[in-house]
Amino acid sequence: MNKIITLRSRPQGWPTDETFEFKEAQVESPAEGQIVVRSLYFSVDPYMRGRMNDSKSYIPPYQLGEAIVGGIVGEVTESRSEAYNPGDKVMGYLGWKLYNVVDAAAVRRIDENLAPLSAYLSVIGMTGLTAYFGLMDIGKPKAGETIVVSGAAGAVGSIVGQIAKIQGARVVGIAGSDEKVKLLTDKFGFDAAVNYKTAGDLKAAIAEACPNGVDVYFDNVGGDVTDAVMSLLNDYARIPLCGAISAYNMEEGADLRPSILTKLIKTRSMIKGFVLSDYTDRLEEGAKQLGQWLSEGKLKYEETIIEGFDRIPEAFLELFKGTNVGKMLVKITPDEG
Amino acid sequence: MNKIITLRSRPQGWPTDETFEFKEAQVESPAEGQIVVRSLYFSVDPYMRGRMNDSKSYIPPYQLGEAIVGGIVGEVTESRSEAYNPGDKVMGYLGWKLYNVVDAAAVRRIDENLAPLSAYLSVIGMTGLTAYFGLMDIGKPKAGETIVVSGAAGAVGSIVGQIAKIQGARVVGIAGSDEKVKLLTDKFGFDAAVNYKTAGDLKAAIAEACPNGVDVYFDNVGGDVTDAVMSLLNDYARIPLCGAISAYNMEEGADLRPSILTKLIKTRSMIKGFVLSDYTDRLEEGAKQLGQWLSEGKLKYEETIIEGFDRIPEAFLELFKGTNVGKMLVKITPDEG
Repeated sequence: MNKIITLRSRPQGWPTDETFEFKEAQVESPAEGQIVVRSLYFSVDPYMRGRMNDSKSYIPPYQLGEAIVGGIVGEVTESRSEAYNPGDKVMGYLGWKLYNVVDAAAVRRIDENLAPLSAYLSVIGMTGLTAYFGLMDIGKPKAGETIVVSGAAGAVGSIVGQIAKIQGARVVGIAGSDEKVKLLTDKFGFDAAVNYKTAGDLKAAIAEACPNGVDVYFDNVGGDVTDAVMSLLNDYARIPLCGAISAYNMEEGADLRPSILTKLIKTRSMIKGFVLSDYTDRLEEGAKQLGQWLSEGKLKYEETIIEGFDRIPEAFLELFKGTNVGKMLVKITPDEG
Repeated sequence: MNKIITLRSRPQGWPTDETFEFKEAQVESPAEGQIVVRSLYFSVDPYMRGRMNDSKSYIPPYQLGEAIVGGIVGEVTESRSEAYNPGDKVMGYLGWKLYNVVDAAAVRRIDENLAPLSAYLSVIGMTGLTAYFGLMDIGKPKAGETIVVSGAAGAVGSIVGQIAKIQGARVVGIAGSDEKVKLLTDKFGFDAAVNYKTAGDLKAAIAEACPNGVDVYFDNVGGDVTDAVMSLLNDYARIPLCGAISAYNMEEGADLRPSILTKLIKTRSMIKGFVLSDYTDRLEEGAKQLGQWLSEGKLKYEETIIEGFDRIPEAFLELFKGTNVGKMLVKITPDEG
């Protein structure tokens, strides 16, 4: 039997029990050219919240009654394609199902001898690549500059900071617990880190960590943290805008913030939104560079792994509470599927 | 006797009678290498409001008790420099004075046979160059794209729209009176124009004028107009940010707006603040191109000219009320100085 999680209703604000529906069905038989992929790891990511809304964005919204789609690492259990044999490990954007029956072209092969399977959903996968292109192509950090990363202990933020260190920049992370702050400086090699929940005067705390101002702000969160960092921008600062997790569950009109326009003019700074699919033709370059840094020991990573298919919605919601360190993944237990 | 307008006090919010002080003094004698410049036209510009604050920006604040400084076209009345003779016309950033005594290097020669003197403060001067570099270097309009310009009947906006037309774009202007709207379509050749004061549902009105969305938004104003345009951005839109006149007289904290971050991510758009001095090494290129378009009849311009030295502060304040069409200038009457 297959298990499937579909979008039951579009959430207003925070997703609830009404948002998702669990279904069971027979696993379909693969047609010629298709394979059956048994899910091993599910990636849950903040951008998925946007796809639950029925609004125009860079990817179409999820359809009601259809399986939620996301990054999945799995194992081929049955193949009617010459491209794959049972036992092969693959990665693709597949449904939240124990088993996906898909065309062979819908996945790509991954090699667990090069990196752990889960890494293909984190440091050398979508999150690592997002960090790489946003920082290198938009942020363009120079040696000696100061880079501030919000959501710094998250999947993208932790990689951004380490890549910026490789470029010779001073790196300051902002995160939401003392445990995360310690991790940033001790494990990921950040020069300083600020706990935005306990900092009191957030702007003063960040300013103290950035005595030379802020040249690149890699923003993952938006909200109060972003307001504080914006006030510290140096001339010609660059702001790759990857996510604004603090706003994803807001209802329309609840996002009044101080306008940043005047500050952008005064500092002639640049903000640019981006998503990984903007760099589709450069993914090879990014994956190669990340893989090299990983093998050289220059990139460390963390994962928060929750076990059990039924806990995927819970893992997704935890993202917005910030309980995860590094990449949030759901692992299928051996007795499932 | 010389007349001088100094900054008496830094305004909180709107400038008042307390902001400026009129003084009289003897005209100093020029030292060796200096010239005396009799002012003919004074440029009043929104950016000057920012210099009245004591805050870090791209140019230092005006000093209390010192003359306000701005763009001036004048005539050399006395010269102790080989570079200039009495009667020569010059342009420079000089004090709000009837007579400025300055080093010859502080001004540059202008030719009233090539263009009217006032044009050196407008279409082929700072405002034209601001339009040119912001639009061409940051906005990068392509033929067939839609460009929206706010403050469209102003000095910068009217030139931006015409340059965008030269590039083959569809141009929509936003302005604050029916007279201005008519001018935009009839004289400046805009494809459509919206009166933001009478439009009612501003977003709907702009959307109607932009059936294919917005690819470049040249923002001169900020505020409600900007909120409306931001909601209509196409993917990969570009927003050269030149001014936010609606915010210049706001006191701190009074600028709460809907956050634009989510929209920037969804559309992967780019906002970049800029000022003309970012393009110091390309001014020749810009001036040459503007002069060529002007001589070919491709660039039209308007000026709102107020007469009399004593009315400079009044002209400056009118900028924020939007009463001017095109460049706001103050002309010295023949009996002054």
